[in-house]
Amino acid sequence: MISWRGFRDRRAAQNARPRATSRPLVVSRVELGDFTPDLDVYLGLAAYLQLALFESLGRASSIAPSTRAKALTGLVATSTLERHKALLVEIERAGKDASDVMQPHTDVIDDFQHRTGGGDWHETMLATFVGAGLLNDVFSRLAAGLPADYRERVVAALEWNAATDEAEIVAELSLAIGADPKLASRLALWGRRLVGDTLLVARAAISASHESADDERLEPVFTELIAAHTRRMDSLGLTA
Amino acid sequence: MISWRGFRDRRAAQNARPRATSRPLVVSRVELGDFTPDLDVYLGLAAYLQLALFESLGRASSIAPSTRAKALTGLVATSTLERHKALLVEIERAGKDASDVMQPHTDVIDDFQHRTGGGDWHETMLATFVGAGLLNDVFSRLAAGLPADYRERVVAALEWNAATDEAEIVAELSLAIGADPKLASRLALWGRRLVGDTLLVARAAISASHESADDERLEPVFTELIAAHTRRMDSLGLTA
Repeated sequence: MISWRGFRDRRAAQNARPRATSRPLVVSRVELGDFTPDLDVYLGLAAYLQLALFESLGRASSIAPSTRAKALTGLVATSTLERHKALLVEIERAGKDASDVMQPHTDVIDDFQHRTGGGDWHETMLATFVGAGLLNDVFSRLAAGLPADYRERVVAALEWNAATDEAEIVAELSLAIGADPKLASRLALWGRRLVGDTLLVARAAISASHESADDERLEPVFTELIAAHTRRMDSLGLTA
Repeated sequence: MISWRGFRDRRAAQNARPRATSRPLVVSRVELGDFTPDLDVYLGLAAYLQLALFESLGRASSIAPSTRAKALTGLVATSTLERHKALLVEIERAGKDASDVMQPHTDVIDDFQHRTGGGDWHETMLATFVGAGLLNDVFSRLAAGLPADYRERVVAALEWNAATDEAEIVAELSLAIGADPKLASRLALWGRRLVGDTLLVARAAISASHESADDERLEPVFTELIAAHTRRMDSLGLTA
């Protein structure tokens, strides 16, 4: 159980020493270029995921605990749909139909969304922060294997406004967690459940390539993904 | 009951003669500048409405009958959130807090959304097309009484991508209506119910001004709003 004071002290301690997240990500970042699926598979999966996130956020907005929380949900949903739209542009550029390339991924993503959508506003926002955050990491790494003329735009689409959104979610959730130790415990548990379901989707994205995904080269990637997850939970004062 | 053939014949007939909608709206358009509420009331109501529409669209997306329908829902939701975001910029420009100015309108809009959200994807999209369309008409007319330096930007925000979205919704709904006469009957009934609930919100927006809204000057406005509603239903081949 984490008190607000404990949280603040911990943040202060983090700020006092060089933080893991302040190191340039590129130093340790293992890329997944060998496991990148075909362009249309990649784009269909990524675009449909953003659409599914928007649905979760729509539900979260309708049960937001305050107008301020609702407004935040709207802003995060806007970014999600902007990413979706930017990915649709790439699908069109690739000469494909958006519905056709998204269709094969509806089952895996709908199932993921069903299990990780969350029971209340706080759970959905945590899912958006840690679940979507982890999957964005995966897609950014997989982008290394996309055709060169797509790579940069796709990564820009995935990262559109992500830092701002994450900061806003962290600020709002931290306030709520600081004010309610029970919520802190519940969200810590929820975060642990989320990471399992999210890694399944990550695995599905990686397995969609022609390479065999049962490869020990994947181990350091999953280690890094989980480390990033731990940092996200930590930024909320929650134990991963 | 309207058959697909009937619908097509009707469209052909409409195209053959000058259509009511092709007349410049400005000729007959009655403005509502005398009934414009204070800037912050106007912006809070308009911004919260767009947020509520996004919630409906989120639910609609999760029950869309096809991936194509889901993709369309995402595009329309994007526009809705873009309008919301543009209105937030105006709220900030006016030196107000978004949550504060939206808060007073949550009851009337949540109630409206609850009654007009729709039971399935088609009903929600019809509500978005005819309900939100009517309210956009009202807010555009009320904008005439806003401070001059806000008026143009607010109208641009309200109308952002509206024509494109309406055309896409009409295309998709028309296909579904043409293929299923039962759906046509059901949506015609739903449209009639929608207009009543929507006019109540229009009335609330108008009554938020200091002017007494029990004014015979309002009659031609409501006549025009209903005429525009009839044209929207007509564009779907449905009787208003």
